[in-house]
Amino acid sequence: MAEIRQNIATKEWVIISTERARRPQEFVRLERTPTADRPERSVFCPFCPGNEEQPPAEQMRIPAEGPWDVRVVLNKYPALHLGDGGYERHFDGVYRWLPGIGRHEVIVESRQHNTCLGLVSPAEAARVIAVLQARAIEFARIPYVEHVICFENHGPQAGTSLDHPHAQIVGMPVVPHQIRVRMEEARRYFDDTGRCVFCQMWRDEVAAGERLITENEYFVAIIPYAAFSPFHTWIIPRRHGSDFLKATPDEVNALGAILRDVLGRLYVGLRDPDYNYMIRSAPLHDPGLDYLHWYVTIVPQVTRTAGFEMGSGMFINTALPEESAAFLRGVEPF
Amino acid sequence: MAEIRQNIATKEWVIISTERARRPQEFVRLERTPTADRPERSVFCPFCPGNEEQPPAEQMRIPAEGPWDVRVVLNKYPALHLGDGGYERHFDGVYRWLPGIGRHEVIVESRQHNTCLGLVSPAEAARVIAVLQARAIEFARIPYVEHVICFENHGPQAGTSLDHPHAQIVGMPVVPHQIRVRMEEARRYFDDTGRCVFCQMWRDEVAAGERLITENEYFVAIIPYAAFSPFHTWIIPRRHGSDFLKATPDEVNALGAILRDVLGRLYVGLRDPDYNYMIRSAPLHDPGLDYLHWYVTIVPQVTRTAGFEMGSGMFINTALPEESAAFLRGVEPF
Repeated sequence: MAEIRQNIATKEWVIISTERARRPQEFVRLERTPTADRPERSVFCPFCPGNEEQPPAEQMRIPAEGPWDVRVVLNKYPALHLGDGGYERHFDGVYRWLPGIGRHEVIVESRQHNTCLGLVSPAEAARVIAVLQARAIEFARIPYVEHVICFENHGPQAGTSLDHPHAQIVGMPVVPHQIRVRMEEARRYFDDTGRCVFCQMWRDEVAAGERLITENEYFVAIIPYAAFSPFHTWIIPRRHGSDFLKATPDEVNALGAILRDVLGRLYVGLRDPDYNYMIRSAPLHDPGLDYLHWYVTIVPQVTRTAGFEMGSGMFINTALPEESAAFLRGVEPF
Repeated sequence: MAEIRQNIATKEWVIISTERARRPQEFVRLERTPTADRPERSVFCPFCPGNEEQPPAEQMRIPAEGPWDVRVVLNKYPALHLGDGGYERHFDGVYRWLPGIGRHEVIVESRQHNTCLGLVSPAEAARVIAVLQARAIEFARIPYVEHVICFENHGPQAGTSLDHPHAQIVGMPVVPHQIRVRMEEARRYFDDTGRCVFCQMWRDEVAAGERLITENEYFVAIIPYAAFSPFHTWIIPRRHGSDFLKATPDEVNALGAILRDVLGRLYVGLRDPDYNYMIRSAPLHDPGLDYLHWYVTIVPQVTRTAGFEMGSGMFINTALPEESAAFLRGVEPF
């Protein structure tokens, strides 16, 4: 018999399927050349060294002088454009809109074409996180940017067409409805119990142990009890805070290390699966919330959703969170 | 410059991208054999006539005697299983769960292997809707079923591995969180304005005309103003009602006709795209709501979502709703 589990933070129900359940090994990707086996350079890649004139204007490079290690460029096809000052929201009956202003940048993570965060050193991974944080802080200075989302799409199933390792950051002039809904649920938990639901969750998961993947001084990586898809992972900071922009340098370094550790285990264990990771942080103008907690989600793209998920918002997970976590605990990352 | 639009019913924001925008013709599917060009029978298909012993127990057939036109069978790999009476929800700290009880059936829509709702007659499409409604009414008699979702996955991008046309119905013992969130937004609109937001929406869209695909005496088919993906369609009943189970026989017939009309236009215009459709209806134990309105959503699977959508709940639509609707208005369905 399957189990229906609820994520106590988001209040979302998930069907943990036993009938359709697959063993962790069954999610291993076989049909594609793993990242490390691709060429180290590509003449066609707009992000490879030597092709720096191809992509749009550079916004930042590290180090500032000499050959770069990390570059930030404007997205060539940005979802949102920098506006020229203010903007107005338009309300006309059932139609509501505002101009698509905001900012959308790409972080080229490495000079190397054939790598990814699971293969680099902890320090290199931390550098990417530090750049994301620096850009988010910069985005927060734009008066109309209400919310920032940092994410990476790795591989075609995760929605990218470019192989070269790159993250993205979008600053948007609205707070997404889903973010507000999640804030509301977290606030209710806080008002009921006097506690942050995420603080409670990581503590209980460390005590339980069975869904823990790995941990360090500053972070805990778990497969959530109600993970919505196979190997869906949360990396939660131990210190309470709602705002990724306020993570300390030590936390940024530790996040780089644990993110690289988990992505390295996925790379080795599932043979370079496509994945998305997202940094979930509070809206920019809601700082220091007692009830909200920033964290990182990793979603390996190893299954597909369909009409059931779209029509209900509920997911069917064909892997047992406990089994997925045990599998990843047993994998040695690079 | 892109536009950020809000769906006034769901309160979800969507980026309508102009930078990345593609013309309707660019979404035409070319790489796959269209449904009608496949063989009429397959010896390997568990849903084809002659293979009736392959799938699990038959639940219903139409007509009851002689060769069947529509069959209902249990899903071979059900998401949820029929329980044996009651059940309990378990609350243990941050862990909340209940057994995976419910019901999951498959509606084999036709004897013919190489057809789909966009190719059949209006009467045949209506028969499928009538069977879905009959099964939903049956599911509603199960004491612990709180919510029913009817949907179809057409094609591999839409999440099905079986070609033979089939819909599905799932009865579940919880009300999905997303449904509750949408109810709450619709209730707020009603409390503010004294009107059902869906009634307001279809009336305004008929008056505006530019996002209208087609209409009949009982239904209106539109591309929503804040459609979240290319050719995302809503089919809204003109008569207010929150419950698909209470649609009249005339409405069921008219829904069959308009669904077949829209899916036929998609078939011809985009060359048999993969799609999901879902019937969105109120929770079973919330009948006759003033503020909620049942409807059908169609989502052609012509693009892919990625980290941005997952991390924000916001979508980027690379097609202009007005242009998509104009394109479909100009297509002659079979």
